[in-house]
Amino acid sequence: MKHNFGAGPCILPASVLEQAAQAVKNWDNSGLSILEVSHRSPKFEEVVQQTEELVRELLEVPEDYAVLFLQGGASTQFSMIPQNFLQKHQKAAYLDAGLFGHKSIKEARYFGEVEVVGSSAGAAYAMVPEIGTVTKDTAYFHCTSNNTIEGTEMFTFPDLGVPLICDMSSDIFSRVIPIEQFDLVYAGAQKNMGPAGMTLVLVKNELLDTVKHPVPSMSDYRIYRDNQSMFNTPPVYSIYVAMLNLRWLKANGGVAQIEKDNIAKAAMLYAEIERNPLFYGMADKAHRSRVNVCFKMHDLAKEDDFLSFAAERGMVGIKGYRTAGGFRASLYNALQIDSVKALVACMQDYEKHSLLSYGNN
Amino acid sequence: MKHNFGAGPCILPASVLEQAAQAVKNWDNSGLSILEVSHRSPKFEEVVQQTEELVRELLEVPEDYAVLFLQGGASTQFSMIPQNFLQKHQKAAYLDAGLFGHKSIKEARYFGEVEVVGSSAGAAYAMVPEIGTVTKDTAYFHCTSNNTIEGTEMFTFPDLGVPLICDMSSDIFSRVIPIEQFDLVYAGAQKNMGPAGMTLVLVKNELLDTVKHPVPSMSDYRIYRDNQSMFNTPPVYSIYVAMLNLRWLKANGGVAQIEKDNIAKAAMLYAEIERNPLFYGMADKAHRSRVNVCFKMHDLAKEDDFLSFAAERGMVGIKGYRTAGGFRASLYNALQIDSVKALVACMQDYEKHSLLSYGNN
Repeated sequence: MKHNFGAGPCILPASVLEQAAQAVKNWDNSGLSILEVSHRSPKFEEVVQQTEELVRELLEVPEDYAVLFLQGGASTQFSMIPQNFLQKHQKAAYLDAGLFGHKSIKEARYFGEVEVVGSSAGAAYAMVPEIGTVTKDTAYFHCTSNNTIEGTEMFTFPDLGVPLICDMSSDIFSRVIPIEQFDLVYAGAQKNMGPAGMTLVLVKNELLDTVKHPVPSMSDYRIYRDNQSMFNTPPVYSIYVAMLNLRWLKANGGVAQIEKDNIAKAAMLYAEIERNPLFYGMADKAHRSRVNVCFKMHDLAKEDDFLSFAAERGMVGIKGYRTAGGFRASLYNALQIDSVKALVACMQDYEKHSLLSYGNN
Repeated sequence: MKHNFGAGPCILPASVLEQAAQAVKNWDNSGLSILEVSHRSPKFEEVVQQTEELVRELLEVPEDYAVLFLQGGASTQFSMIPQNFLQKHQKAAYLDAGLFGHKSIKEARYFGEVEVVGSSAGAAYAMVPEIGTVTKDTAYFHCTSNNTIEGTEMFTFPDLGVPLICDMSSDIFSRVIPIEQFDLVYAGAQKNMGPAGMTLVLVKNELLDTVKHPVPSMSDYRIYRDNQSMFNTPPVYSIYVAMLNLRWLKANGGVAQIEKDNIAKAAMLYAEIERNPLFYGMADKAHRSRVNVCFKMHDLAKEDDFLSFAAERGMVGIKGYRTAGGFRASLYNALQIDSVKALVACMQDYEKHSLLSYGNN
């Protein structure tokens, strides 16, 4: 039995994978694989429409927002956003709360002026920084709701009187977030939505209406909106599996229910990290993420040993990001609480094992 | 029995689909789905490496070319190419030989000056136009090797003394093309390479070395090259299935063998189109594509009836592109000659059926 704590691409529900495999062989008894059908076939157009409806329903997306399916991951959004909404003579405000936010700042600087209105870089990104002054002439404010690498999460979002844009790659669909507070939300699919290869964008039409300069087609959100995300061939299979996964989420009570489950999973793991004398949490308590739980060992020399110990017990993907070190257990929607119990038991076993080893030395 | 003549996403070999489905359930007995593994896992890094090696071997890619896997389809390349290689004060030469070439021209104009050095637009793109004068100060010359919508194909490529860039989306891996004649080749994967969601780029390092201006990361070919196509999360499943499909191609004799098969398939279908008094080919004979065979009926009013007749006999995806009309039978690598025989038989049966109907009226 594997317990997949990978940070993304990540665990998906077993029932979704079963259907996703079947569709590769023979999609809905069509005699064709989902991989070899035209994206312009009525049957696939229905998939796109159903996926959009599920997104709208599960996230309670207001009607005046477009729901778009793109390619290129969140990293492509790092440049598409300023390419659409930031011009040379303008400035945008960015929060520097983690490695991905930091990368988004670098990309925005190709297009206009960036003002970093808060940074926790000096504190190893262990907390979400406070937001400084954002003047009314700012094109938009950009933040990251969950910092996947550093394990911090924003639980409230500011009303600054300028458009609010947020990278929600790793916590979208994991908790209730009022979309109407935002002007644009984006997320790489490969956490709680589906397999890698697709990016979700929710964008207020009012924000799109502000774009007056020419934008190349594949970078222009309006082109995706006006072509139901099918200006060119979309990532067919990623969209299809996302639809299956969102159906699973809906059948399991939707976002409000999964949020309760996710809170319970995170609480259980953080409790063990605090209790267990071998480990400590990396993020400030007030900002620690419910999605990516980052922790280290007081005795750094033991980390490799614990990794092997955990791997032998079926734990997958708990090594921390290469620049952050330590461990990271990602508790995405499809991860069952039994997997968290298994990891907690593993940490407790390792504690006993260490005491024994120590006794023997 | 379905005969899938779809223009893309298109038919893939049954054995590839079988393995692709198995990997979604349990990848190589890892206990994990290919959809839920980290792209940074050694096992997936090996997939990327193997896919690159297969591309290099099958296409005989010279060593000084980078092999890159991107997202966004060929349409994204329409803007990435000028973004990298065409600056405001420069001009590039484009061949306008079909709808996709036409789109690439529009996108290039966001970045610099475009000179259309040949166009068959006035002749409904029924042939590949002759190439006019290309001056030595031209940044590059861009063409499309196979026009998927119009059913024409280039069989020779010019040496113009400027970098040669080619969209090979629909005929790459279908015939032997000397890559060393080109400076950059690109192709959406969803024809002869794999499922939608991935784009292949082959680019000469020398061309990349000419880029001196700042380019946003996700549009910068050098970033993909220097990060083995993993600057961010790649389209994991599309790459994996492409690897399986290229293995199949290699096991079946490689590109030289498949080219012979493809020539035979196209010859068989064109022969019937010429013989059958109800049909005629849309492309000029000298330029007609071996990949996308486009044809019409002399009696336009019968086209819907033939479509239904063919659909009842298992023919899938033979309706022409919406702006081109008529029929299009795509003969990609995985399409067996038996499917072509079935289509020919269907056309012959329809001919008999029409004569009978005519006799009854």
